[in-house]
Amino acid sequence: MTKVAVLGAGSWGTAFTKVLAEAGTDVTMWARRGEVADTITNEHENPFYLRGFGLPATVTATTDPLVALADSSIVVLAVPSQTLRQNLAEWKDSIPKDATLLSLAKGVESGTLLRMSQVIAAVSGAEPERIAVLSGPNLAREIAARQPAATVIACSDSARAIAVQKACATKYFRPYTNSDVIGCEVGGACKNVIAIACGIASGMGMGDNTIASMITRGLAEITRLGVALGAKPATLAGLAGVGDLVATCMSPLSRNRSFGHVLGEGGSMERAQKAAHGQVAEGVKSCTSVRALSESYDVEMPLTEAVHRICHEGMEVEEAIGMLLGRRIKPE
Amino acid sequence: MTKVAVLGAGSWGTAFTKVLAEAGTDVTMWARRGEVADTITNEHENPFYLRGFGLPATVTATTDPLVALADSSIVVLAVPSQTLRQNLAEWKDSIPKDATLLSLAKGVESGTLLRMSQVIAAVSGAEPERIAVLSGPNLAREIAARQPAATVIACSDSARAIAVQKACATKYFRPYTNSDVIGCEVGGACKNVIAIACGIASGMGMGDNTIASMITRGLAEITRLGVALGAKPATLAGLAGVGDLVATCMSPLSRNRSFGHVLGEGGSMERAQKAAHGQVAEGVKSCTSVRALSESYDVEMPLTEAVHRICHEGMEVEEAIGMLLGRRIKPE
Repeated sequence: MTKVAVLGAGSWGTAFTKVLAEAGTDVTMWARRGEVADTITNEHENPFYLRGFGLPATVTATTDPLVALADSSIVVLAVPSQTLRQNLAEWKDSIPKDATLLSLAKGVESGTLLRMSQVIAAVSGAEPERIAVLSGPNLAREIAARQPAATVIACSDSARAIAVQKACATKYFRPYTNSDVIGCEVGGACKNVIAIACGIASGMGMGDNTIASMITRGLAEITRLGVALGAKPATLAGLAGVGDLVATCMSPLSRNRSFGHVLGEGGSMERAQKAAHGQVAEGVKSCTSVRALSESYDVEMPLTEAVHRICHEGMEVEEAIGMLLGRRIKPE
Repeated sequence: MTKVAVLGAGSWGTAFTKVLAEAGTDVTMWARRGEVADTITNEHENPFYLRGFGLPATVTATTDPLVALADSSIVVLAVPSQTLRQNLAEWKDSIPKDATLLSLAKGVESGTLLRMSQVIAAVSGAEPERIAVLSGPNLAREIAARQPAATVIACSDSARAIAVQKACATKYFRPYTNSDVIGCEVGGACKNVIAIACGIASGMGMGDNTIASMITRGLAEITRLGVALGAKPATLAGLAGVGDLVATCMSPLSRNRSFGHVLGEGGSMERAQKAAHGQVAEGVKSCTSVRALSESYDVEMPLTEAVHRICHEGMEVEEAIGMLLGRRIKPE
């Protein structure tokens, strides 16, 4: 039987653990805090990060990475993108030699501008064919509520992708395999920036045409970046591209869209931050690293550029919209 | 100066006329009813189909196709897809010999299963390079309100595509050219079916993951059909594919989504029709012709198949969802 270690007990790590366990897979979680691990093991729930959803009684959690990792054939990295490097450095010597490393983290590492699979390769020394990523329109609470959704598992080794697919396929969670790791990662790293742009447009009172046009032109610039990095366009037209982008941009309740909405209404960065539950929206940080990456590959990303200027250079939203619409008309 | 004839004074024909006139183009409309033509010419508004939006005073309308068509270099066909054949048969001898024929109609002709550009070629005898189509996320009222939006103008002759682009580019309406007529048409013909599927899911209480997954898998099946017909995948990842699909599926107020929503809540076809403003949603008709087209090209379209079975073969929505989720897991 496949044994899986899920390292990280945040909302998505917990929801994905529930999927794995409900697919009949043997899962052990690692949590940083003892009370989180104890509650998961004893109460079969993680009220700290995914309140209201019971976990199968077969799931246990520990604060000892050695216990979680022992005999695992799939190691799920479910920690935030900006701490992955440090966490993995501590774990790497305990990871079974042939295990598949599956990243749930989305983003580009600040400073190095590396994708998560590159960070994993650099820190763990694992061969690229052992590294897989999972990405798609997967809001944790909806998955935990067993609402039907699809996702992509990308790995250059198709046998490993299929092993992960089998470990997490359930009636409501439909994983598709793909060999394009880069494409899957680029979609997840860029989507929040476009969601801020969509929020700005909705805050300015614009309707569905404008939002849909922005999502599509956002997809076009993400695809240009992806192709420059080696991705296949079809991946970005799929669940990890269009799917995740649409889910993130569509919901008026999502953090990045809410943040942009306040800016579009004429609110300050501070007020936008308050509206986004007091946290800085992820896209505010990622627009800077995505922009830096696009510059180093000489790829035009006008929406990302506009969001960066608004969030970090004090450009007014009207001026940014004018900049976008004032561009020369051209082929699609 | 470019002279344009817009044949058809429905909401989209009228809104597009407004765009053309605001771009500085000389436009004459043709309307079937004398009171519509007179009101447009004298009151500079079309309260019958686009109430609340003034038209530039330069716009005139007539019920005489000869008057509208005289000296026009672009002829905009803005009549419904199912009446285009009959209308064009009456007009064809009055169309200037070198004019570009631009189709705004979306759909597949019932019975013949022809795309609009094919109907135009068959009826008018025009060479394919004279036939162009316009498609994108373009809800008429939002365009009339000058909300920023983008669109695609597809023509195998790029000089003609550019001429149309120049005739309609404004500060708020951003046309992109493309050579892929088939791709642009397939997106528009299939989107309403997927919008019904999204409505069904939302009526069943499902959230953004499910809707986004459906939009993406819908795009995948539309792209498969498009490629079988000769389209480029990139076109379907663009404004006439993703853009139009997202705009149609996203808005809870759109007719096709509302229709599906009632079905998803367990309502009957009759109740769904009432909720959709008493009209049969376009996707109810088009699912049958799109399905027939997919069968003749041997393309799998599981969402279209499910919508067809629900709307025309009495299948329960739960059974249809089970059929979709019960499919074998596979590569994306």
